[in-house]
Amino acid sequence: MNAARIAAAAERLAGHVRRTPLLWSPGLDALAGRRVYVKAEPLQLTGSFKVRGAWAAISALPPEVRDRGVLAYSSGNHAQGVAYAARAHGIPAVIVMPSDAPEVKIAGTRALGGEVVLYDRAGEARETIGADLCAARGLTLIAPYDDPEVIAGQGTCGLEIAEQAAAAGVDRADVLVCCGGGGLSAGIALALEDRAPGLRVRTVEPEGFDDVARSLAAGRRVRNTALAGGLCDAILTPTPGELTFPILSRLCGPGLAVDDAAVLSAMAAAFRHLRLVLEPGGAVAVAAALTQPRAVSGPATIVVASGGNCAPQTFATAIVETR
Amino acid sequence: MNAARIAAAAERLAGHVRRTPLLWSPGLDALAGRRVYVKAEPLQLTGSFKVRGAWAAISALPPEVRDRGVLAYSSGNHAQGVAYAARAHGIPAVIVMPSDAPEVKIAGTRALGGEVVLYDRAGEARETIGADLCAARGLTLIAPYDDPEVIAGQGTCGLEIAEQAAAAGVDRADVLVCCGGGGLSAGIALALEDRAPGLRVRTVEPEGFDDVARSLAAGRRVRNTALAGGLCDAILTPTPGELTFPILSRLCGPGLAVDDAAVLSAMAAAFRHLRLVLEPGGAVAVAAALTQPRAVSGPATIVVASGGNCAPQTFATAIVETR
Repeated sequence: MNAARIAAAAERLAGHVRRTPLLWSPGLDALAGRRVYVKAEPLQLTGSFKVRGAWAAISALPPEVRDRGVLAYSSGNHAQGVAYAARAHGIPAVIVMPSDAPEVKIAGTRALGGEVVLYDRAGEARETIGADLCAARGLTLIAPYDDPEVIAGQGTCGLEIAEQAAAAGVDRADVLVCCGGGGLSAGIALALEDRAPGLRVRTVEPEGFDDVARSLAAGRRVRNTALAGGLCDAILTPTPGELTFPILSRLCGPGLAVDDAAVLSAMAAAFRHLRLVLEPGGAVAVAAALTQPRAVSGPATIVVASGGNCAPQTFATAIVETR
Repeated sequence: MNAARIAAAAERLAGHVRRTPLLWSPGLDALAGRRVYVKAEPLQLTGSFKVRGAWAAISALPPEVRDRGVLAYSSGNHAQGVAYAARAHGIPAVIVMPSDAPEVKIAGTRALGGEVVLYDRAGEARETIGADLCAARGLTLIAPYDDPEVIAGQGTCGLEIAEQAAAAGVDRADVLVCCGGGGLSAGIALALEDRAPGLRVRTVEPEGFDDVARSLAAGRRVRNTALAGGLCDAILTPTPGELTFPILSRLCGPGLAVDDAAVLSAMAAAFRHLRLVLEPGGAVAVAAALTQPRAVSGPATIVVASGGNCAPQTFATAIVETR
């Protein structure tokens, strides 16, 4: 896993996946007490960064393997990314989703042509279900984060950040990244190591699901006790990835964790000041920038808003009840 | 008023005002029955296109005039645009706003350093209030649309559309534009006449406030009977502008009008499929693309989403109660 693989992924993605803007607003800066640049992945096709990794992985498969189809397990954003990339490549996609995934994500996956198979998040192991389906139907698993091509695809977000930060005159800053299994954080960290070494990734997770922060502190992979039930459905992974953790451990600063109130406030702030829809799991990095200003250093912070596929009632609650 | 003035405005705006993306999504395309490209002005600084015209007008003033300060009357978006551009130029801004403007816009204007003077939309003429304040304090009025520099500034949005449409391979299409006094529509129409003559502007207004559509049909400027009370506060102007109407009359196709239910549905669709916040007045063009597909021609439609400064309760209603 290296920067050349990310550059190769960027070439395959060009023209198929969107270059998302780096936004800022006076109102958000005032709340954070410094300039906050927001990499707006909710504006990516399918509403999250996940299509980057999905496209990178599917486009890297040998044609005869790819044509049999792909499978993914996902709470929704990876699902939509894989369904979109598979349809664009003209191949079938089977998506294993938890039954408590937001309806907007299940419907979105089906609308993109994905065949959805539901499972119980608390009771069953999605890895087992996925492996069985792959064996039975000749499908190739597109893992959500522990795949070098997926990490490389997510890393294309980091290439864009490097260019956009340079254009904004920012060469030293913390880059706060919403973190589940660590694919996005690892990919961005590798890209920045190569292109913008003054930019340092800091993972951000929900409190109670901060396995990456605790693993970084412990120097080894530890697990969350809870596996379901959090507000931030997109990033509720049990433990850091086997491939992602060594990258995170080598390149990232201490991890951060935010509570649900901070997440809802960040969604309200992005609504009001950026006119951007964030889902809870996609808002944790903004939440850290707004509520933990002393945990980051420097005159400007870059945050990656990773997704915007939000249940309407959740979003309404965030914007109406939060001031 | 000509294309050279728009190009000159674009040079003055460069580096100060954002180039907004042209977005699309499979889900939105499915709803409209064709490809819909959305020019996302809610992502502009201050949350609407208005900062383009404000910056163009303020930057064009002679320094000794500019330094005395500027005044604007606005329901909120022009207010924020003028306040932002004035502060960036280091000059005072007085903003005359209707007392029923959304709180988010009044607060936003104040947060940008604007001095807000409230008036009763149904009872007083904002033009009179503005003229009196200008005379008393030596301020220069930045008119919301009937000013050649303001029209030129809004026209920079059209220059971007011309480039972005060409990049997308679109050389013939209707361009649906949210229309109040006609500054944005006129500016875009002039830019497209020069740079992309196969793209034709169609104004879109709320039903009951469709003075531009009726004026285009009549060949002369006619007035709305109602002056307040509509959902689409940003675009409730009484009659087309003196400067804008001849441009619209020469260059634009028949105007369209949409009802409130269509506006709320469009806001919900932009939330779900673009992860973009639209305010009602900024959503009428998307609403027309989704609900009146037979009124436009061609395989693709370009729509300008003009603003995203929305009261939280209004947005919550749109996304929760609309399917």
